[in-house]
Amino acid sequence: MTNVRIFVTYKQSVFDPQGETIKTAIHSLGHDEVTSIKVGKFFDVTLAATGSDVVTAVKEIADQLLVNFNMETYTYQVMEEA
Amino acid sequence: MTNVRIFVTYKQSVFDPQGETIKTAIHSLGHDEVTSIKVGKFFDVTLAATGSDVVTAVKEIADQLLVNFNMETYTYQVMEEA
Repeated sequence: MTNVRIFVTYKQSVFDPQGETIKTAIHSLGHDEVTSIKVGKFFDVTLAATGSDVVTAVKEIADQLLVNFNMETYTYQVMEEA
Repeated sequence: MTNVRIFVTYKQSVFDPQGETIKTAIHSLGHDEVTSIKVGKFFDVTLAATGSDVVTAVKEIADQLLVNFNMETYTYQVMEEA
């Protein structure tokens, strides 16, 4: 069993309107020390696989389903492998 | 400057329909080794603050803005502090 967390974010070049809106709201709360905020999604995936099978599966799932490569990019992190 | 990543997820007791739908889609791709998928949001926050000021700010921002405590819960991770 392996737990993987896949992070999907906008590409650096893509404007993140939700992040900008939240930043404005945070400033109205009085937290002017917040200089930037970016929003993303993550997917906690549990797989009955280990090692290179996990890498292959995560890549296919991201490529074919989770990520819009026109605007988004992804990274992942193996949280637990047993 | 401190970079903090705030993770917002459904509480364990709350059904995650998006996660279930994605799991079904992943199975149709042939990846039956995926046994569970949970969806969450994250916020990459940059603050012009350090130490306990960051902890206070993150708690207030989560409590007052980012998290719906009826259905959601959050954790955070300091990614970089300089």
